[in-house]
Amino acid sequence: MRSFLESRRFERVFVVIILINAITIGCETSSFIMENVGGVLHVVDRIVVTVFVLELAARLHAYRGAFFRDPWNWFDTVVVAVALVPASGPASVLRVLRILRALRLISSVSSMRKVVAALLAAIPGMASTIGLLALIMYVSAVLATELFGEIAPEHFGELPASLFTLFQVMTGEAWPEIAADVMAVAPWAWIFFVVYILIATFVVLNLFIAVVVNAMDDQNTSAEEQRTEDQLGAVVDELARLHAKIDALQGTPRADEEARLN
Amino acid sequence: MRSFLESRRFERVFVVIILINAITIGCETSSFIMENVGGVLHVVDRIVVTVFVLELAARLHAYRGAFFRDPWNWFDTVVVAVALVPASGPASVLRVLRILRALRLISSVSSMRKVVAALLAAIPGMASTIGLLALIMYVSAVLATELFGEIAPEHFGELPASLFTLFQVMTGEAWPEIAADVMAVAPWAWIFFVVYILIATFVVLNLFIAVVVNAMDDQNTSAEEQRTEDQLGAVVDELARLHAKIDALQGTPRADEEARLN
Amino acid sequence: MRSFLESRRFERVFVVIILINAITIGCETSSFIMENVGGVLHVVDRIVVTVFVLELAARLHAYRGAFFRDPWNWFDTVVVAVALVPASGPASVLRVLRILRALRLISSVSSMRKVVAALLAAIPGMASTIGLLALIMYVSAVLATELFGEIAPEHFGELPASLFTLFQVMTGEAWPEIAADVMAVAPWAWIFFVVYILIATFVVLNLFIAVVVNAMDDQNTSAEEQRTEDQLGAVVDELARLHAKIDALQGTPRADEEARLN
Amino acid sequence: MRSFLESRRFERVFVVIILINAITIGCETSSFIMENVGGVLHVVDRIVVTVFVLELAARLHAYRGAFFRDPWNWFDTVVVAVALVPASGPASVLRVLRILRALRLISSVSSMRKVVAALLAAIPGMASTIGLLALIMYVSAVLATELFGEIAPEHFGELPASLFTLFQVMTGEAWPEIAADVMAVAPWAWIFFVVYILIATFVVLNLFIAVVVNAMDDQNTSAEEQRTEDQLGAVVDELARLHAKIDALQGTPRADEEARLN
Repeated sequence: MRSFLESRRFERVFVVIILINAITIGCETSSFIMENVGGVLHVVDRIVVTVFVLELAARLHAYRGAFFRDPWNWFDTVVVAVALVPASGPASVLRVLRILRALRLISSVSSMRKVVAALLAAIPGMASTIGLLALIMYVSAVLATELFGEIAPEHFGELPASLFTLFQVMTGEAWPEIAADVMAVAPWAWIFFVVYILIATFVVLNLFIAVVVNAMDDQNTSAEEQRTEDQLGAVVDELARLHAKIDALQGTPRADEEARLN
Repeated sequence: MRSFLESRRFERVFVVIILINAITIGCETSSFIMENVGGVLHVVDRIVVTVFVLELAARLHAYRGAFFRDPWNWFDTVVVAVALVPASGPASVLRVLRILRALRLISSVSSMRKVVAALLAAIPGMASTIGLLALIMYVSAVLATELFGEIAPEHFGELPASLFTLFQVMTGEAWPEIAADVMAVAPWAWIFFVVYILIATFVVLNLFIAVVVNAMDDQNTSAEEQRTEDQLGAVVDELARLHAKIDALQGTPRADEEARLN
Repeated sequence: MRSFLESRRFERVFVVIILINAITIGCETSSFIMENVGGVLHVVDRIVVTVFVLELAARLHAYRGAFFRDPWNWFDTVVVAVALVPASGPASVLRVLRILRALRLISSVSSMRKVVAALLAAIPGMASTIGLLALIMYVSAVLATELFGEIAPEHFGELPASLFTLFQVMTGEAWPEIAADVMAVAPWAWIFFVVYILIATFVVLNLFIAVVVNAMDDQNTSAEEQRTEDQLGAVVDELARLHAKIDALQGTPRADEEARLN
Repeated sequence: MRSFLESRRFERVFVVIILINAITIGCETSSFIMENVGGVLHVVDRIVVTVFVLELAARLHAYRGAFFRDPWNWFDTVVVAVALVPASGPASVLRVLRILRALRLISSVSSMRKVVAALLAAIPGMASTIGLLALIMYVSAVLATELFGEIAPEHFGELPASLFTLFQVMTGEAWPEIAADVMAVAPWAWIFFVVYILIATFVVLNLFIAVVVNAMDDQNTSAEEQRTEDQLGAVVDELARLHAKIDALQGTPRADEEARLN
């Protein structure tokens, strides 16, 4: 059963099913398509959900306890569970999350799973810098709220609004307009914006560099350096053999000498 | 004939012809220039197309079957074929593609052909990440259509509109205005935008890094590491010669001992 | 006392206090929260400031003269001193800087202190390029003020305004609108903008590269290359031992020969 | 004389003069300052220009023919010559270029001269990619003029306008508004914009990578790899000495054997 679930053929069929489902859910957003072939889309959706539930049950049966140790299985279970939320009632709002099922493509295609794993692996190395960035944003937001809260209440009226505005400024968007609004009353406000942009950009740049350097480091080992290391290993081995031979050489004549002395 | 087609002199003349044609096609966009020297431009265009057709025929004659094996030849053929579309009739709209002839500059200058080949070579390594990015955009677009379709129909009314809007957001353009439109009705929408921007930026960053790392890897081998490897190879060879010498040493005295024993 | 101040437990408690204080100062920006629990927030603030002053006094007592040699201690002292500024009077405007206390998180968490130290360490290597960028901005701003000062006084009326506008252009923001304003009167102004953007972007790019290359260089040594170097060192040692053995070999038979000659 | 012109003390004094002049020229842009201390600024300017001319004459006298071989000297001469343009008359418009004198800071400070030399050195490696980018922009501009010229004449009316618009799009600015203008009439125009942005960004990215890789390559050799290479060289030397010793070893006993045979 496991070998069937892990076979390439099964993976391919499953990927096709996920893609079809992603398209049908996408089609359901169009009222025009829904009016004409809404019934068909509904039936397809039911079938796909059934297949998903069966596949999960099969995997649970095949791997038992090990099933819950793989976080991808948790992901699949949650995503499928959303599909079973009733279309009416208090939880019906969760039905918009049905499209998350398309993300099963990630857990089903191994090359995508690798990319996501690599992305997630890069996060711990960025933790300190992200923390620093969050701290800078928070401090700047409190400052901006106190300084500009009454001048530009639509941007800096409350702390959450300030945080959102500063996130926009950090993405480099629309900051000239925001700065112009504030500077109409407080002309010295350019200092705040220029300093914030320079610091935030510099920290983001270093965040980015941390990711590049890590990626580079991992990659570099695999190919060139590995070969260099292998060759060096071979050199060390050869040297060890030379030692052994010279020891033997040294042993033979000594034995001779000793024999001659007797 | 081949040597003539591949000669530097021919390449240079041909590049000049392509550049002249690129300029004349550019001039044809100006109604002022067309009124004054439109006739001349037309004649030049006719001549250039004739040269292009003759050159293609000559290449086809010179390389025969091999002609169709080089994708650049296909490119040249299609680009020249567009020039032969009649100026009136149903296909006349294709005439705007005449300027694509200027792209023959790429196939005619070897250094440009190399740059394009390098660009295309970088794509397979990015396939998984591009797929992931497309998946994220599609899922986000379906979500946005369902969540914001009625709030901001000009941005998220239909799935294709949502995809285009999210592409704009990913290029970092105009997202504050789009977010402001949506947040006027659904104040919690900032969560969607912030999460989408963070994820999309992070994936694009990793796409970018993949390209850098690949480029770096290719480059690195060529110079430094190659020299290190060559030196290591020399060390291994020297060690092998040492082994041989010591074997000879060991052989000689042993032979001596054996000789003495007899 | 030092060991207590440097203990992990104390660090953790202190980080929690800083975080609580950062949150309470953030809450004070909200008039709604202030009306309801303003008194509590005030008391918390008083307590935290007292703890900060006590901790500083304890550190000063423990390290004495060495206290002033660590720039982080100067940072902490200034940040805490701001808290003691009276709420009314001419200096009351400084009270908005109270939130800078949250930056004590950087000096208290060692991993953050490392990140900031790394960021600061990157600056000297960028000094020449930053100087060049400042020079380019200044020259461009003087040029723009003289050329466009009367055309677009809101952007280029005075030198400081021009500098701010060119900083906006460098961050890639809103330059099409500014250029459109100017080009309505001086159509050739696109040359200025295109040249400025190309040069500024190129210099910023190289600034960025300098940081990447430095980071890469530091990182690279630590892992792979270090191992290669260690292996090479081992090879050199082994060779030295081989030399010694062969010297011994050579010595023994020679001694023999000499003995035989006698 | 040369040693005086190249002395550190002279360099420093000269840098101060350039900075003072840069500030006075900057001050001349302000009508308020000009009204009050305009006379003083004028005198300072006259003095500085005199110093510049004298310094150039001294350098010309000291280096003679060699003076014209250094492109920096040409740069200095042109920049100073601009200062001598009469304030009235047809060439008076060139007087705005007086601020370019501040760029003498680059030619006078050796660390800045190095940065600029490094920037210029990076350009040849980017030539092919820049050519490709220019070609793509030109082809796209001709296409856009023909396709959208009548729809959005303010953006794509003429070929130069199209080129400028596409440069704006490439810097990622304001393209959603331009696209919206065009798509109001030609809804399929999103294809053009998305394809153009993807291709242009990808080529720019590769341009950028070329610079990074080159910078990295130059840097890398200098430190780590150099040490690795030195160690490998030492290993090769040691092996050569081992060979010599073993040859000697092999020689001695052989000589013995031969001696014994006689």
